[in-house]
Amino acid sequence: MLLENMKNRRTIRQYTSQDIPDELLNELLEVATRASNTGNMQLYSVVVTRDQAKKEQLAPTHFNQPMVTQAPVVLTFCADVNRFVKWAEQREAVPGFDNFQTFIAATIDSMLFAQCFCTAAEEKGLGICYLGTTTYNADKIIDILGLPRLVVPIVTVTVGYPATLPEQVERLPLSGIVHTETYKEYTPAAIDSIYKEKEALEVNRKYVEENAKDTLAQVFTDIRYTKKNNEYFSDVFLKVLKEQGFLQ
Amino acid sequence: MLLENMKNRRTIRQYTSQDIPDELLNELLEVATRASNTGNMQLYSVVVTRDQAKKEQLAPTHFNQPMVTQAPVVLTFCADVNRFVKWAEQREAVPGFDNFQTFIAATIDSMLFAQCFCTAAEEKGLGICYLGTTTYNADKIIDILGLPRLVVPIVTVTVGYPATLPEQVERLPLSGIVHTETYKEYTPAAIDSIYKEKEALEVNRKYVEENAKDTLAQVFTDIRYTKKNNEYFSDVFLKVLKEQGFLQ
Repeated sequence: MLLENMKNRRTIRQYTSQDIPDELLNELLEVATRASNTGNMQLYSVVVTRDQAKKEQLAPTHFNQPMVTQAPVVLTFCADVNRFVKWAEQREAVPGFDNFQTFIAATIDSMLFAQCFCTAAEEKGLGICYLGTTTYNADKIIDILGLPRLVVPIVTVTVGYPATLPEQVERLPLSGIVHTETYKEYTPAAIDSIYKEKEALEVNRKYVEENAKDTLAQVFTDIRYTKKNNEYFSDVFLKVLKEQGFLQ
Repeated sequence: MLLENMKNRRTIRQYTSQDIPDELLNELLEVATRASNTGNMQLYSVVVTRDQAKKEQLAPTHFNQPMVTQAPVVLTFCADVNRFVKWAEQREAVPGFDNFQTFIAATIDSMLFAQCFCTAAEEKGLGICYLGTTTYNADKIIDILGLPRLVVPIVTVTVGYPATLPEQVERLPLSGIVHTETYKEYTPAAIDSIYKEKEALEVNRKYVEENAKDTLAQVFTDIRYTKKNNEYFSDVFLKVLKEQGFLQ
């Protein structure tokens, strides 16, 4: 059954007013702690936001996407090395965890934890939406949530009961994603074939038109993920990693 | 049912000789593509290793952990911006994706994809093991798998049918991981309480003894994840990010 649910899943951006009981939320988070993690150090934390005023504080850091204030629960998943280091220091151990490799391990840990939570939540009839804006405005989120040194927010998930069942969005064919034994560089013909269906979709053709662009790719490069923004937010995030103690 | 399976899961490091049919593997990877990802750009790839010679080439990059040569299938999940950029360039779009923020987005995408694969695989009776060594020796893995610019291996998963059912390992209590509204800094008493059960476990007390250490934390800081190694492998990985085009 799970596999069917996973196949049919959609991101949910509109929620009913039904709240999520603490008991259910904790059960799902508990399940998620069974996710694999680095050396069983569990280098992650999650901050639960239910308070409306707090959601309104967070909203601008996610460019005011309406899910943040509408969802009953907002979860900020964090790479967290602070707890482990505090433990080590309290146990006569000298940790050397303020570095980039440990940050990457903690990022991986927090993502596996987040994804297990999301799969479990969806299995229980909840809907989720990942917000990729978390690393853009990590500095502001750190202030709002009071994250100490060696803790960095990686991704935010809004959770609630689905108010609508949106269409499932397309994915690239698997052949475009899987490489056998070694990476097979994409030829121009392969690229055409991999992106053909995506580009032909009515919804994507309208999207190009609405944005007054010639190709779907241009909507991404010129509007949604511009070089200027990517570089600006790269600087912000690298600065965050320095300030939080993960980069020299 | 899924939730029960997720609660009862264990990492599997020993596999039977039973192979995984391509059809099943592809079904599971297909399910995994339904995972959330950044702007539906799907900034990931997976390299499938079945060839024994290739596994033996990979083994040292994972410090010869026996799963690499024993598992029927080894999957290397990669942050992949190359495919998207190739597409953009072929569609008169000028991508600005050679930066750190895009690397982080691609890392998140590849982790959500990997974790969905693992949950689906486990639901089908397979066992998996994550190898955190991938980012340590990413430079060597790039050579072995022939990964081009803008592609970085993030995590490796070995997959096969379980030969044994190991004991489930402990996790920290949920209260040690969840923060409500704002991050609550850990007091010494809180740290003691969070780690108490873990430290009291017979298996962990033996582990401290075998390693001739005074505390469990010291096994991590002095033996498993030393400052020296963490810093050395941080430099390796930062160099990889530069060489693959994600850092200036």
